Amino acid sequence: MSAEEVTRLRQEVSALQQQAKGANAGEPIYLGQYLLERLAQLGVTQMFGVPGDFNLGFLDLVEDHKSINWVGNCNELNASYAADGYARVKWNSIGVLLTTFGVGELSAINGLAGAFSEHVPILHIVGVPSTAQFKTKPMLHHTLGDGRFDAYEKAAEQFTVAQAHLMSAEVAAAEIDRVLTSCVLSARPVYLTLPTDLVYTRVPSGRLLTPLPTFPPPNEPNTQEFVLNEIAKLVEEAQGNAVILVDACAVRHHVIKETRELVKKTGFPVYSAPMGKGTVCEADERYGGIYVGSLTREDIKEKVENAKLIISIGSLKSDFNTGNFTYSIPTERTIELHSDHTLVRYAYYPGLGMRRLLPELTARLTAHEPTARSLPVPKFAPSTPPPDDSPIITHDWMWQRVGAFLRPRDVFVAETGTSSFGALDVPMPDDVTFVSQILWGSIGWTVGSTLGAALAARDLGLGRTILFIGDGSLQLTVQEISAMIRSGVAPILFVLNNSGYTIERYLHGRVRKYNDISNWKWTQLLSLFQGLPEGEKPVGKSYTVSTKTEFDALLSDVDFAAAREIQLVEVMMDKFDAPRALRRQAEVVKARNSEF
Amino acid sequence: MSAEEVTRLRQEVSALQQQAKGANAGEPIYLGQYLLERLAQLGVTQMFGVPGDFNLGFLDLVEDHKSINWVGNCNELNASYAADGYARVKWNSIGVLLTTFGVGELSAINGLAGAFSEHVPILHIVGVPSTAQFKTKPMLHHTLGDGRFDAYEKAAEQFTVAQAHLMSAEVAAAEIDRVLTSCVLSARPVYLTLPTDLVYTRVPSGRLLTPLPTFPPPNEPNTQEFVLNEIAKLVEEAQGNAVILVDACAVRHHVIKETRELVKKTGFPVYSAPMGKGTVCEADERYGGIYVGSLTREDIKEKVENAKLIISIGSLKSDFNTGNFTYSIPTERTIELHSDHTLVRYAYYPGLGMRRLLPELTARLTAHEPTARSLPVPKFAPSTPPPDDSPIITHDWMWQRVGAFLRPRDVFVAETGTSSFGALDVPMPDDVTFVSQILWGSIGWTVGSTLGAALAARDLGLGRTILFIGDGSLQLTVQEISAMIRSGVAPILFVLNNSGYTIERYLHGRVRKYNDISNWKWTQLLSLFQGLPEGEKPVGKSYTVSTKTEFDALLSDVDFAAAREIQLVEVMMDKFDAPRALRRQAEVVKARNSEF
Repeated sequence: MSAEEVTRLRQEVSALQQQAKGANAGEPIYLGQYLLERLAQLGVTQMFGVPGDFNLGFLDLVEDHKSINWVGNCNELNASYAADGYARVKWNSIGVLLTTFGVGELSAINGLAGAFSEHVPILHIVGVPSTAQFKTKPMLHHTLGDGRFDAYEKAAEQFTVAQAHLMSAEVAAAEIDRVLTSCVLSARPVYLTLPTDLVYTRVPSGRLLTPLPTFPPPNEPNTQEFVLNEIAKLVEEAQGNAVILVDACAVRHHVIKETRELVKKTGFPVYSAPMGKGTVCEADERYGGIYVGSLTREDIKEKVENAKLIISIGSLKSDFNTGNFTYSIPTERTIELHSDHTLVRYAYYPGLGMRRLLPELTARLTAHEPTARSLPVPKFAPSTPPPDDSPIITHDWMWQRVGAFLRPRDVFVAETGTSSFGALDVPMPDDVTFVSQILWGSIGWTVGSTLGAALAARDLGLGRTILFIGDGSLQLTVQEISAMIRSGVAPILFVLNNSGYTIERYLHGRVRKYNDISNWKWTQLLSLFQGLPEGEKPVGKSYTVSTKTEFDALLSDVDFAAAREIQLVEVMMDKFDAPRALRRQAEVVKARNSEF
Repeated sequence: MSAEEVTRLRQEVSALQQQAKGANAGEPIYLGQYLLERLAQLGVTQMFGVPGDFNLGFLDLVEDHKSINWVGNCNELNASYAADGYARVKWNSIGVLLTTFGVGELSAINGLAGAFSEHVPILHIVGVPSTAQFKTKPMLHHTLGDGRFDAYEKAAEQFTVAQAHLMSAEVAAAEIDRVLTSCVLSARPVYLTLPTDLVYTRVPSGRLLTPLPTFPPPNEPNTQEFVLNEIAKLVEEAQGNAVILVDACAVRHHVIKETRELVKKTGFPVYSAPMGKGTVCEADERYGGIYVGSLTREDIKEKVENAKLIISIGSLKSDFNTGNFTYSIPTERTIELHSDHTLVRYAYYPGLGMRRLLPELTARLTAHEPTARSLPVPKFAPSTPPPDDSPIITHDWMWQRVGAFLRPRDVFVAETGTSSFGALDVPMPDDVTFVSQILWGSIGWTVGSTLGAALAARDLGLGRTILFIGDGSLQLTVQEISAMIRSGVAPILFVLNNSGYTIERYLHGRVRKYNDISNWKWTQLLSLFQGLPEGEKPVGKSYTVSTKTEFDALLSDVDFAAAREIQLVEVMMDKFDAPRALRRQAEVVKARNSEF
């Protein structure tokens, strides 16, 4: 045994011994520091939120932390959206949001509910009154005036998978670990109250030696073996005529790599639901496009619905994700892999999660490659828009042009509405991260989300962050552009100026006034948010494009495309124009609504 | 009997007969119309909110309604703040907020919680999926994806005093009446879900003939008589040495007139808690100023705390309203009148409300006038700021100057922070409505609130609406200035540019970065929000004042003071300057916190 080996072994023994001392060992540190170290271990580099007097003490620790940066947001809802965007892009970490008791946390609750709905891991830390005050319940500011100090937490319980209300130092570290583990493994938001007095209470740091689990525990081996056999048998019976259908939870529960491996090793044709866009590379020869029930392009629809077997990965069958529930795939021909259960035709296997199952499944099904590769896959290419001599920028034209503008590793954020529907027809280069909120659909969400996404992209060395948002949506959350500038990120913000809520005009009230909004001078926004001292140079450029030629020229401009500083592009569009998918969706919804 | 009398009696009989037919009589009308008629009866002229696909059908009825105007807000939180501001100023009506399922309603929940905390009547109408969908619970957009369609309502239950989840036409009208009555009589928010299909279901309109009660029912007569005797005896024993202390709920539960009558008829000295400011006319010779525990001016403190009896009206003893719980008034010397109970020393009388009790009490105590009027009252005049030759605008100087600027019947809105504390020292002319959120204290609240307040002021023919807000707070909710412009109101917006969260600097983190914000070009805001078509003239004027001389000159300008169009004044201030009351509050809080 060499000297180096002996040294290494000794170090290992020492580390294990230290770890074995367990939870109560280690140098005592402030509870606030303990929490921050746990977050740093999870790769958290940004904390979003708004200061408030019940979280200021903790903020001192955040501001002084060596690897976690405080992003002061303009308001709490935007901060929660930013934490969500950050967590989506920085897939191996979580988003963190810090607010204050009552007023702050409730302003953010819609953002947490959205993260719950769409499987995004966010830790919501709320600075609350001291443990003594939680016992005596005085009529503090930010209270309801009736002594119900637990009301906010009761609301939070509806939208988080775990909550910890810290009341003593003894169990605080374990409680923090519990909610963080739940956040990571379920990819859902959790809620943590941090009383002012506990922040600076000392706790043993020994637990920090054991990192929190970031990978789900192994599946029960006998069940897994049984299910693998069942699936293998079905694929055998289908004579390899199986297709893979990827969806939201493939992304949200981190099986992108595993899914791509399955596609590569088996050669099965692969399709995507709208919310699964980006799971597989669209340039892959086995990728056939978007399946969205009756809204699907006919050639794609036929291939998916006629396959003898559909292996669905991470499906999330919401209305907008399924062409308003118009899937035509019988359960008898479906295998569904989920984060915490598996469905094989009618059989339900609780606890059997796909992250562990998928690599095993790939190994089993590799043998089918030769037959699978013989299955034809429609070449995924967006439908060419009808010839159109008008100079006006139309959705049909624009989304194709946007596709050509995207580069590998870009982050592409699409606001609910014309943008999210339009994005479905955008051909995406490899490894583009597609960020959208198709199930929850809270308008304005992408503004905060773009801030978080851009910060995460910077962390991960990804490409540009590109947002498409309508004017109506941008008005909800516009101030967060100020935080983008302050954080030094350089997203490209495309603002579709179409005079209001166009998605709603398609659903109801086409010419109603309630779907109109005030027009703003969009190209003055970047300047307005920078009231700089004399001599300091503002960042950012703003543009308005009114014709296809102007739009095309801007996107072709090398400097523009380099995205070295924040840029805002106002895109003038007709208020009654909409992307193909939205027009079809509106037809389906109207037909359905008329049934009532 | 004259012919006119006969006609009148016949009409009366006919009306009563129609009424007697009861709930199921009357021309059937859409349920949505029924709701709107009830609101119109309550004097509602404005509905705040944001359209969303589950409320668009109802919005058609709103847009077509003859007396209720739809105010399209930029976002739901701002809309809830606007409904709150409207209800505070239009004291005999309620605020109404319309949002959509999940995403919309949750964004507004902080506004509802604030209204709960501060006793403001708001009806929150949420457009929700159809009753059929509420039974089958499909995975619609705006849902949590797990079939929990009741999650949002469970959250709302924490912050509203009544909820109605409409599921059938049979009881829908009665349910609407129930929550509206609760809203009006408790002066608190209520929650109503309106499924898409029920909006256009017909219901009998007969109930509309009976207006909803807007005055609390009579107190139980024996209890009231007993309590009146008890109080009269105590005043007798005190030999007329009693003072009146008015507070928040005197305003919020509509006993301003009754309180002023008590003061006038008895001559008792009257003081106000911060949240009661404006209940009595400050020019009244019996008005002695603000009592706020240990923060009180010494001469006022002595008078209040040494009175033999304190008759407290509508007290709400929150931290910021009591100098951090430093009242020095023993229970033995206190009578407390509340909206729904009365306290005489240690005795509690549930159900005995002040709105009915006060006129009776006034009648009983009138006899004490001669002795009461002999009690000296400190002349209420703000402390003169120390002489100061610096041109810089200081809080000590500014709030005095603002006092001279106010006119009778103005609406004076003060944001939580330096503005709300500064406002306490502003001498107010008669019948100024003071709008602030001292208990709930959600920063950014006044922007929406000013919109609602200005619309209510226009309804009631009041004077100017004047807002004071810090730059940090304005960033949370800035977009609602756009809705002010669109609604055609003409508030004066004073923006205190003091580089961040000054109130927090006083509480903690004086030079911490987390209390800094980005500086904006505030004076460009009004222009930015008006991207008008060629030829249309923008409204509004913007100013920056950096010195006392400039500030004084602007306020002295007749055109400025006339407030004919929206105006924004950026007031440059030092980031470490604060009003007297905030400096004292911070000292008290720090001393208290150090006890932990």
